[in-house]
Amino acid sequence: MMDSPHSASLSMEELHEAWPVLSIDERLEGFRLLPSSVADDFFLGLSAREQAELILHLPTSERRTWVRLLPPDDLADLVQALEPEQAEALLSQLDDASRREVNVLLAYAEDDAGGLMNPRFARVRPDMTIDEAIGYLRKQAREKVETVYYAYALDAEQRLQGVLSLRQLFQAASDKKVADVMQHDVITVSENTDQEVVSQLFTEHGFMALPVLDEQNRMKGIVTVDDIVDVVQEEATEDIQKVGGMEALEAPYFEVGFFGMLKKRIGWLLVLFLGQMLTATAMSSFEGAIERAVVLSLFVPLIISSGGNSGSQASTLIIRALALGEMRLKDWWRVARREVLSGLVLGIVLGAVGLGRIMVWQSMSGAYGDHAFLLGCAVALSVVGVVTFGTLAGSMLPLVLRRFGFDPASASAPFVATLVDVSGVVIYFSVASLLLRGTLL
Amino acid sequence: MMDSPHSASLSMEELHEAWPVLSIDERLEGFRLLPSSVADDFFLGLSAREQAELILHLPTSERRTWVRLLPPDDLADLVQALEPEQAEALLSQLDDASRREVNVLLAYAEDDAGGLMNPRFARVRPDMTIDEAIGYLRKQAREKVETVYYAYALDAEQRLQGVLSLRQLFQAASDKKVADVMQHDVITVSENTDQEVVSQLFTEHGFMALPVLDEQNRMKGIVTVDDIVDVVQEEATEDIQKVGGMEALEAPYFEVGFFGMLKKRIGWLLVLFLGQMLTATAMSSFEGAIERAVVLSLFVPLIISSGGNSGSQASTLIIRALALGEMRLKDWWRVARREVLSGLVLGIVLGAVGLGRIMVWQSMSGAYGDHAFLLGCAVALSVVGVVTFGTLAGSMLPLVLRRFGFDPASASAPFVATLVDVSGVVIYFSVASLLLRGTLL
Repeated sequence: MMDSPHSASLSMEELHEAWPVLSIDERLEGFRLLPSSVADDFFLGLSAREQAELILHLPTSERRTWVRLLPPDDLADLVQALEPEQAEALLSQLDDASRREVNVLLAYAEDDAGGLMNPRFARVRPDMTIDEAIGYLRKQAREKVETVYYAYALDAEQRLQGVLSLRQLFQAASDKKVADVMQHDVITVSENTDQEVVSQLFTEHGFMALPVLDEQNRMKGIVTVDDIVDVVQEEATEDIQKVGGMEALEAPYFEVGFFGMLKKRIGWLLVLFLGQMLTATAMSSFEGAIERAVVLSLFVPLIISSGGNSGSQASTLIIRALALGEMRLKDWWRVARREVLSGLVLGIVLGAVGLGRIMVWQSMSGAYGDHAFLLGCAVALSVVGVVTFGTLAGSMLPLVLRRFGFDPASASAPFVATLVDVSGVVIYFSVASLLLRGTLL
Repeated sequence: MMDSPHSASLSMEELHEAWPVLSIDERLEGFRLLPSSVADDFFLGLSAREQAELILHLPTSERRTWVRLLPPDDLADLVQALEPEQAEALLSQLDDASRREVNVLLAYAEDDAGGLMNPRFARVRPDMTIDEAIGYLRKQAREKVETVYYAYALDAEQRLQGVLSLRQLFQAASDKKVADVMQHDVITVSENTDQEVVSQLFTEHGFMALPVLDEQNRMKGIVTVDDIVDVVQEEATEDIQKVGGMEALEAPYFEVGFFGMLKKRIGWLLVLFLGQMLTATAMSSFEGAIERAVVLSLFVPLIISSGGNSGSQASTLIIRALALGEMRLKDWWRVARREVLSGLVLGIVLGAVGLGRIMVWQSMSGAYGDHAFLLGCAVALSVVGVVTFGTLAGSMLPLVLRRFGFDPASASAPFVATLVDVSGVVIYFSVASLLLRGTLL
């Protein structure tokens, strides 16, 4: 899969490959075996949690080197992964300016734009010439700015006046002014913009970086696209785990302790279990019907699970569309219309297959008695009803949750399935009572 | 949520907001109303499919302007979204060099590194001085290179010798050689590396760009992190939709036609429906037991769904861990051990709750007859068995699928639930037969 001209980078790859299953001592040993030319890259590529763990196991004298390597936003993440007294000790090893930067970042919520941003961005003044601007950027790069995608033109009060891409800077004639070349319309975010909104802006516009402004329009930092990759990955993981019917984990599978993992799983399972008890209650009110026609009970799992499955489909579809900004709350009516129609068609197809299966089985074995056709019709009709209801409920639930300020992803597949199971029992036995009265019942 | 100092960019935001629900004519109208200073950005931010749709509705004379705006990799994506004869017509409007570039890119599979890469990257020669290199980069930026993160040092045969970040370039003394400053160990990918592997490299290392080499180690282009955001988003969407029990959609919810959507959903629903029919078959072999003790049938949905729910949890957990590279196939034994233990604990908790519920209900209403305690024990024991089995099956299935070259995400929550339902029926009635023989049965 990977080509690499040098063996050093290969061994960096090898360490990456083995990393998830190594103990901390093995990690430390492996890390020390890396050629120094790639150790920096390797360290920068670790997650904040992994960096923190490694740092804590290094002698104090070595810590400073690694901590200084990190840009302030990553350093703030690392500090947040430490215990308070460890964080204190680490911060005391920084120079004053860096410590101030990190402390400012620590004040932001981790998943706001302020918590993601890097305060070291490339700045120019609007009245500089292009040549002056390039010289000024070279100076900044020498000092502390890591990566330059855009240069931001600020006035004396640090308010954002415009932006230039490096390309625009390089393309322009040397003696032009920055203000003549820069773009004045800049899309920005505020310090408190949620990371999910920030990442939607990135995916919609394909930006490399977005400037972060405070309430007085002063520029505080930039969020860069490489941090957004992690945000997108994280948010998707949370959604997938919630869709699967559990609380989102905060760490990779093997790094979550056994009991921590159980805690994330038991909550929803218990809620669903208690919910499913209603199926027993619902069925017990039809006990008389089952007694008269035991054959009815055979199709209960089939019918309720078709509702559950179609509901799971619909809910995950809508959860993802909401997360990607493909639909808004106000589209609910369009969604409802479309999903009812889909549910009806899907239900009719499945119902027909169900009826067919019962008739074929009957002609082969006679297992379903004298009223097999009527029984088949009851099953088929119930499937149509249950699938239509499941599809509608599954598609509307995420919208309702969003409407009331909850995470739509909590409308997990198992949750929708449970909800639909109970109604499925009621629909099935009601249809059967109506259709089979006087024959089977 | 969004701050923007100018109203022009606000109206770009407004159009973005409304975009998903606009007809093509409304989109065209809105697009023409954008100030020309932001129309470029807006166009570049659209998906390839949306760009193609818009282009087709513009007069031929205007098309050329927009097409030329796109870098070759995005242009290749747009061309792939068109019908063959439309693509032909569009390509004929390009200059020779650009057409050649696009045609080369079209030869790659869309989800390989070759299909993602941009052939216009910033190059320098190892023997240039830093000042020469900066001058050379300025010249390239003026001509065609869009964005400069790194400068790649190539020899005369276009083989990659090393890489410099802009920061390194700007930091270095003017008269040093590129070869003295550049990093020699470069992580690269080949043209055929799958996009999922490429995006894992980006998230693991936090790169801004990765060079793509052919088999002779000649550099063909770069994959940039902004394209990776889309890849990560896309792969996550595919996984979530598969986990929800349907085929992955290729377009946003409202852009998939009604029947196209049905086609993506009915396949899995049918497979699951046919699978669920086995529950009816399984139950019919216990028809005698149900006839003797109808009360047994009341708990069928409760028991099989606890297995289904715990299985869904386990499978989504493992699917995501595999997608993120948090575990490998060879970890299967560690996973199995851990999941069996988890399943056992989860099952015991749920089983105890189930037994408690039956006893409470019994003391209140006497609904479950003389042998309520035995019945409760049968239910509780079955829940332990079914949940343990469901957890194990759900966690192993994605690994088995990966082992045989299938997508682990096909082990969707509904699929696992169906699989576990059938075994749940068998486990329940077997436990009940054993425990209740001579009393209820």
